[in-house]
Amino acid sequence: MIEDKNQQPTPLSELGEFGLIDHLTKQFDTKQESTVKGIGDDAAVLNFENKNTVVSTDLLIEGVHFDLSYMPLKHLGYKAIIVNLSDIYAMNAKATQVTVSIAVSSRFPLEALEELYEGIALASKIYNVDVVGGDTTSSTSGLIISVTAIGEISQNDEVLRNGAKPNDLLVVTGDLGAAYMGLQVLEREKEVFKVNPNNQPDLDTYTYIIERQLKPEARKDIITLFKDLDMKPSAMIDISDGLSSEILHICKQSGVGCDLYENKIPLDPQVISTCEEFNIDSTTVALNGGEDYELLFTISQHDYPKIKANPNFSVIGFIKEAQAGVHLVTRAETQIPLKAQGWKSFND
Amino acid sequence: MIEDKNQQPTPLSELGEFGLIDHLTKQFDTKQESTVKGIGDDAAVLNFENKNTVVSTDLLIEGVHFDLSYMPLKHLGYKAIIVNLSDIYAMNAKATQVTVSIAVSSRFPLEALEELYEGIALASKIYNVDVVGGDTTSSTSGLIISVTAIGEISQNDEVLRNGAKPNDLLVVTGDLGAAYMGLQVLEREKEVFKVNPNNQPDLDTYTYIIERQLKPEARKDIITLFKDLDMKPSAMIDISDGLSSEILHICKQSGVGCDLYENKIPLDPQVISTCEEFNIDSTTVALNGGEDYELLFTISQHDYPKIKANPNFSVIGFIKEAQAGVHLVTRAETQIPLKAQGWKSFND
Repeated sequence: MIEDKNQQPTPLSELGEFGLIDHLTKQFDTKQESTVKGIGDDAAVLNFENKNTVVSTDLLIEGVHFDLSYMPLKHLGYKAIIVNLSDIYAMNAKATQVTVSIAVSSRFPLEALEELYEGIALASKIYNVDVVGGDTTSSTSGLIISVTAIGEISQNDEVLRNGAKPNDLLVVTGDLGAAYMGLQVLEREKEVFKVNPNNQPDLDTYTYIIERQLKPEARKDIITLFKDLDMKPSAMIDISDGLSSEILHICKQSGVGCDLYENKIPLDPQVISTCEEFNIDSTTVALNGGEDYELLFTISQHDYPKIKANPNFSVIGFIKEAQAGVHLVTRAETQIPLKAQGWKSFND
Repeated sequence: MIEDKNQQPTPLSELGEFGLIDHLTKQFDTKQESTVKGIGDDAAVLNFENKNTVVSTDLLIEGVHFDLSYMPLKHLGYKAIIVNLSDIYAMNAKATQVTVSIAVSSRFPLEALEELYEGIALASKIYNVDVVGGDTTSSTSGLIISVTAIGEISQNDEVLRNGAKPNDLLVVTGDLGAAYMGLQVLEREKEVFKVNPNNQPDLDTYTYIIERQLKPEARKDIITLFKDLDMKPSAMIDISDGLSSEILHICKQSGVGCDLYENKIPLDPQVISTCEEFNIDSTTVALNGGEDYELLFTISQHDYPKIKANPNFSVIGFIKEAQAGVHLVTRAETQIPLKAQGWKSFND
């Protein structure tokens, strides 16, 4: 879990609760103008002047959302922040602050938490958000991370899920399915390792998809780009559960239908080759894999020239009236109703 | 865990993740003027106009913070909200919104979560806060609740922990130690129940202290009272970990010392009698018990006439220069240095 640095692990009980909080959070100074008071009081105090405040929250549970046998703690800390910032960007907002609460069992030494917080600090620095609060407590089993992300947005600039209109174009950033295939590779290597711990895996051909799983990025750049292009999507959502269920969210909340074109779904060559290797259909992976943290949005056709030549964007579908339904138009030009696979973890 | 209502428990897998979120959150309409967009998008959108925003967050873990063998789920939902609102009031702010994330293992049927959300809804209604977001996910073991509370406050009205001055008075609301003694009674009854499940406990003489443990309230009324009295404390904190560690927080952050008078600590008669029964020192309980959710604050002596006759307040100490240290002045007039017991759950 931690690197061998020839040092004795420090049990958490040595610091106590307050010592631990102080130790882990002392590195966080605040840089955002909107942060009036950060860590160290009953609550953080923020000032967004006459802007709107945007708030989103997520829980990450060991054994459900991550597996520490292949997820380095520093990456986990980084990802925990990214996952939440992605929701703020999906509102077309600027992310400004996060609070981070963790619960850990005593099997984690202090050095493990330091690594986790290194990742949290790195993401906060790169995405320019202040860590303004949180809670550190013990758990009976494993590691639990709860992050709340806060952002600001000028009034009426927010983009909700409910604004898609018939004849709008459906657009996605980046490419899809890579994080899911990265997970498949990591799971396979874990099984190999169990059988033969001396086997050194060669993961060179999977670097992109593994990075998408272990160290995803959030599309802060796209929100800046929208401003530069002087455009505002009619509806937007981030892709955490999978393209399929996110399209259904937009369609349900906007009261519209949609045709999604299979041949337009952006896939990285490494995703295609790994899907072939694993004998999985790449469209299914893009539709239901999830954890892409790309942005899915709709725009008026009027805005099409603004995004047309930009390699960040792929037009993948067309918004229709509600009664047309929500369909995947396959390469063979057949229409298949889209279903939300979502995240089936309540099935045991 | 749930009452016998002659109905079959509904497994969570029957609803799926999205169905579950919809089902649990459909009861939450928004009432606060500052809530622009509540549940149902990537993030909530809030508008505090030119006021400051206050944010606080807490994690509650089954087996660490609560025991479902005597904590009814409805009370747990209520308490999860109260614990967080208390932090907002401790800033002298008005609580306006909460987000609630839960992780549950599949041993919980839908009806159990409905009870939990009943308590959340009740607290939100009584304290007039909107539930504007959250996350529902599965856990590998037990129930985890993460709440983020949000509030608003006029600029420069916030009361931090660092404003106490020498010669200020140290004041506490309500009475202390009851929640801890309530927990002792409940733990004892649990042990009795294990030995003889047919034994019906008679808890009539413990109603107040048990209620303080199972269904605490936050001191929203005190924040209103401060406004009515046209006064503002110099420093404030809520008592979650115990009087002792909260006094030390104020003294450390304000750079002051303090004399706490043992004979001034407010105790309910039921706490005193139960301490006698359990053969525990009531001062120790008040100092280190925690979970009181009362407010501890300091005021200039100039403000003393405003609080003097009010039964909500007890003056329990006197702020001194830092070099005087932080002491308990006992009934025997000896001085004992105060130590933070805090919450020692990292010791295993």
